[in-house]
Amino acid sequence: DPNLKVFSLNSNLPLAREIAKVIGVDLGKSSVTRFSDGEIQINIEESIRGCDVYVIQSTSSPVNENIMELLIMIDALKRASAKTINIVMPYYGYARQDRKARAREPITAKLVANLLETAGATRVICLDLHAPQIQGFFEIPTDHLMGVPILAEYFKKREFNGDIVIVSPDHGGVTRARKLAERLKAPIAIIDKRRPRPNVAEVMNIVGNIEGKIAILIDDIIDTAGTITLAANALVENGAKEVYACCTHPVLSGPAMERIQNSKIKELVITNSIVMPEEKKTDKIIQLSVAPLMGEAIIRVHEEQSVSTLFD
Amino acid sequence: DPNLKVFSLNSNLPLAREIAKVIGVDLGKSSVTRFSDGEIQINIEESIRGCDVYVIQSTSSPVNENIMELLIMIDALKRASAKTINIVMPYYGYARQDRKARAREPITAKLVANLLETAGATRVICLDLHAPQIQGFFEIPTDHLMGVPILAEYFKKREFNGDIVIVSPDHGGVTRARKLAERLKAPIAIIDKRRPRPNVAEVMNIVGNIEGKIAILIDDIIDTAGTITLAANALVENGAKEVYACCTHPVLSGPAMERIQNSKIKELVITNSIVMPEEKKTDKIIQLSVAPLMGEAIIRVHEEQSVSTLFD
Ligand SMILES: Nc1ncnc2c1ncn2[C@@H]1O[C@H](COP(=O)(O)O)[C@@H](O)[C@H]1O
Ligand SMILES: Nc1ncnc2c1ncn2[C@@H]1O[C@H](COP(=O)(O)O)[C@@H](O)[C@H]1O
Repeated sequence: DPNLKVFSLNSNLPLAREIAKVIGVDLGKSSVTRFSDGEIQINIEESIRGCDVYVIQSTSSPVNENIMELLIMIDALKRASAKTINIVMPYYGYARQDRKARAREPITAKLVANLLETAGATRVICLDLHAPQIQGFFEIPTDHLMGVPILAEYFKKREFNGDIVIVSPDHGGVTRARKLAERLKAPIAIIDKRRPRPNVAEVMNIVGNIEGKIAILIDDIIDTAGTITLAANALVENGAKEVYACCTHPVLSGPAMERIQNSKIKELVITNSIVMPEEKKTDKIIQLSVAPLMGEAIIRVHEEQSVSTLFD
Repeated sequence: DPNLKVFSLNSNLPLAREIAKVIGVDLGKSSVTRFSDGEIQINIEESIRGCDVYVIQSTSSPVNENIMELLIMIDALKRASAKTINIVMPYYGYARQDRKARAREPITAKLVANLLETAGATRVICLDLHAPQIQGFFEIPTDHLMGVPILAEYFKKREFNGDIVIVSPDHGGVTRARKLAERLKAPIAIIDKRRPRPNVAEVMNIVGNIEGKIAILIDDIIDTAGTITLAANALVENGAKEVYACCTHPVLSGPAMERIQNSKIKELVITNSIVMPEEKKTDKIIQLSVAPLMGEAIIRVHEEQSVSTLFD
């Protein structure tokens, strides 16, 4: 369909190229560079008049640069008479600032939704939002894809020498752990961190039976990796045979890589929703591609078919 | 007035402190920091419920960081029940992207105006916008302050040994040059760059009489300083006795400092609308403060008086 155009911005070009291949199109021609003073300069180098345009951009680090690139690209597409402007965000930055946890805090996840709409987005396709409620921050249609089936597929194919148990590293992640557990026909366990008294170290209580088992920790985002590595070590101390960890979004900032390397985690399974620089890759890390999922979602959205059946 | 609160973000804290002093208030307590992954974290540390809040932020380099800081701060203030949210932008980034110069370009200056309004700004106070038309990009009230009176004041006090002439480095800046010339009761001249044929170096024609005179070049923004230094050298070659240069917004990116240092410019007069790092300061550079102007503007806006009389 010559009316389907896929553009990539700068945050995750390798994934965008894969997605374009899945769809069977070439990436649209555009250049996104910087003026001498750091301002973003965008040139769309082919006509998109009357087209359905899909723009692929993860708002991962540098998050503010990537958000502004996206907003300015949307503005340019709108002024160049695109028919629809569909934003494909494998990773949605600021998703953790989704409520006022304290007085006088911003709700940046909502602000970003408003900014995308103001710029001119007509639809958003997301993957594993930190809170599914973020869909409700938009007035425009949203599609919410899930990373769990991709992770489940990987662990299904892997031959484990023993019983497995899916572990949520905190009480907030139990629903996600359950989804993976259902697909792997495994039980779940939960790490219930409690601070007995103020200024005393947290105690890791494990709810559920993990002894002698192969534990698979799951989270949506692994950022500084504090939670997940403490959880892994607690599992081993409490008798787990081996510990694996997985997540959709490998933010992996600050001390993350060092912590993972020094932890009891045998293998960390992530997706490519956020690009992983070569120098960060280690033997412990397995990266799965979300390109088939996101590509198929774009095809279905463009053909006005349901995306929800993607998860069967 | 306890209902008047002035906050500063990170782009130009020295100027914000000066402005607060002019007004006679302390800067509001807030912290604007970064999470480990680079996302902005804002905490407003005092109640601003029912207050008229003024937020000082130049959207200079790093422009995208500074814009996002500003938008997130506005969101936090709005959710904390500020009565009005007045944005004080000594420098308005992306002002040069104020029209489609080519097909399929964004109009980022307009986008930024929309973003500020979407976040919740109720008024904007600007200084020397690259194009005064940018005021029309806003639906909310704007106040547009002028840097020329500050620059004029400086040159009036300086004793020149000879006749002066105010020079616009290009035809786009003639109106600005005229304003300075009127205040200094001096004639104007214009540099009229022409490219005789494609791929041939531009020729600098000087329109007006500069021979034996002290030339003062004026521009709104000096960015890479290519235009202004070529202009200065052309003036000297054509018989000007001495060349001074001035501008409101010292962007000074890339090769700017080196070019200025190696040019025929005797002295460059700038304002502090954009912060100037200590290591950039040289003997050639004189920095004037816009704090008295901006402070007075805030007082007048708050007392619902006209700001236009500030320029008499
Ligand atoms: N980029 C970030 N890095 C670390 N913490 C964050 C970030 N953004 C928001 N938060 C905090 O994370 C908490 C929400 O995370 P959660 O409880 O997992 O939903 C809030 O207290 C936020 O202040
Ligand atoms: N940050 C920037 N640095 C250099 N040039 C820019 C910048 N932003 C916009 N421009 C270009 O400057 C031109 C407008 O400048 P002017 O003709 O002085 O109004 C347009 O062609 C823009 O593409």
